Amino acid sequence: MTKVPTKSDIELAHRRIKDHIHKTPILTSSSINKIFQAKLYFKCENFQRAGAFKMRGATNAILSLSKNELEKGVATHSSGNHAGALALAAQSLDINSYIAMPSTAPDIKKKAVEGYGGKITFCKPTQDDREKTLNEIVKKTGATFIHSYDDCRIIAGQATCAKEIFEELGETDYLLAPLGGGGLLSGSSLSAKYFSNFTKVIGVEPKGADDAYRSIRDGKIYASIEPKTIADGLLTSLSVKTYNIIKDNVSEIITVEEETILKAMYLIWERMKIIIEPSSATVLAAVMENQGRFHNKSLALILSGGNVDIKKLQR
Amino acid sequence: MTKVPTKSDIELAHRRIKDHIHKTPILTSSSINKIFQAKLYFKCENFQRAGAFKMRGATNAILSLSKNELEKGVATHSSGNHAGALALAAQSLDINSYIAMPSTAPDIKKKAVEGYGGKITFCKPTQDDREKTLNEIVKKTGATFIHSYDDCRIIAGQATCAKEIFEELGETDYLLAPLGGGGLLSGSSLSAKYFSNFTKVIGVEPKGADDAYRSIRDGKIYASIEPKTIADGLLTSLSVKTYNIIKDNVSEIITVEEETILKAMYLIWERMKIIIEPSSATVLAAVMENQGRFHNKSLALILSGGNVDIKKLQR
Repeated sequence: MTKVPTKSDIELAHRRIKDHIHKTPILTSSSINKIFQAKLYFKCENFQRAGAFKMRGATNAILSLSKNELEKGVATHSSGNHAGALALAAQSLDINSYIAMPSTAPDIKKKAVEGYGGKITFCKPTQDDREKTLNEIVKKTGATFIHSYDDCRIIAGQATCAKEIFEELGETDYLLAPLGGGGLLSGSSLSAKYFSNFTKVIGVEPKGADDAYRSIRDGKIYASIEPKTIADGLLTSLSVKTYNIIKDNVSEIITVEEETILKAMYLIWERMKIIIEPSSATVLAAVMENQGRFHNKSLALILSGGNVDIKKLQR
Repeated sequence: MTKVPTKSDIELAHRRIKDHIHKTPILTSSSINKIFQAKLYFKCENFQRAGAFKMRGATNAILSLSKNELEKGVATHSSGNHAGALALAAQSLDINSYIAMPSTAPDIKKKAVEGYGGKITFCKPTQDDREKTLNEIVKKTGATFIHSYDDCRIIAGQATCAKEIFEELGETDYLLAPLGGGGLLSGSSLSAKYFSNFTKVIGVEPKGADDAYRSIRDGKIYASIEPKTIADGLLTSLSVKTYNIIKDNVSEIITVEEETILKAMYLIWERMKIIIEPSSATVLAAVMENQGRFHNKSLALILSGGNVDIKKLQR
């Protein structure tokens, strides 16, 4: 695969994963449209298998492996949705998965990975120890390391989400996607380039974790240092791959306040009766904070996942 | 309309309301099927307009009125989903609605009714004062009183939910519906009689509000006195109409524990990423408490609504 996924890479990824993922629904809410005086289309990856879009990339990555690689399984370090998605994709395709997981990861994520048959090795919650633990796993098992976003197979897989949006809706004025490490956003921007004519792609980041906003503004990748946000899927930094794709193909990055993220999340829970995680709510938060400019526009919003410990969040 | 809605009453109701309600989706969850070793089909009335199946009956009742009656509007007393549904149905059909509402009703319900343009008169939370207040409204406005379940137009409207299930799924071994005043359950049992061959209909009631269970067992209607359950949509007693239909057409009533209702609600939130209210969770609670007998069976479960103040519930 080339450095940037091509149109046919994404088409191939889609054909490959189609039978292994859900084609998630696009929902609308007349009451939310009324509030914002705009046409909002919510792509519900919270209903995706394993509860997040990550299932797309993980499945594509595994299905790209050789027979020899498949026999040895896959490995990653992750405290979040990528871990669960990789474990479920591996289980569904009948191969082993090995996950280096910070011991501080939420119980709900640990249980998910175990439930999907992933073999967890706990490590310290530092980048260094995650990578050290992962390297040991890989040395011992021969498993293939699948990074959660710095990987063209992953980016091509995540791109299929926006591809489905264009296939179902045609063009919208804007497409908004949450921005963490940039796998979903870079994939979405490539799909917009290949499968739409004029849809502008916007990335949305919490103000408390705005490393990508600053990276694109200043033309160099900043690490995400001590990010502070309830959007726990958006804590990571851009990689070289995602940075370059986003720089070339994304119109703009909008940052949003914590308070708005929560307001947006509750509004979606209340009006749409669906559960989304805080990271997903950033896209509606961006609309809330910029009502004037989205007035009368059509917007596709990717709700990236629904893995949230509601009982914990409310305390 | 006759005393018990006929097959053609229900068919007519469905044609009448079709363009005014959502045909709600039927969702499945492979992980929930795996847990219970059964095929569960969830009919998602939490996605219905106004957030509950009540929209069906309310719309059918209003569309059954004469031009003269429509001009004077509709009235009811309700602290719950019927109030919201009647107000929204009235607003959509461009007529007035007057709601006698106990001052103790949850804020979220008051706001919903107001948001739908309903004119609220607050009263004391006793049956006597609710009826007195309603009578005064009716005297003053000439509005038509629409009872929330003791009304054949309402029952025929609620019956369209199960009719949609049979149309989409064909037969299932069982159909489970929550049981409060009996509008949904009696309508569902009539639809099973008219539109299926062998599906058995089961009503589910919280143990802390088991007046209907006792009524059917003893052959006389008990009032629901000081019911204690988190399932706030299931506090009311049967009426003569719903009692008679349920007695003749429902196979069985299962009562469930409070703890199981909460467990079932969280399981649906967590696995299906949809928000349902506690009343809706009773049907899965019945499966939880009776796993042996539902083993390998196909079950349609009506998730009756999604109007829950999550922030409040969690405190």
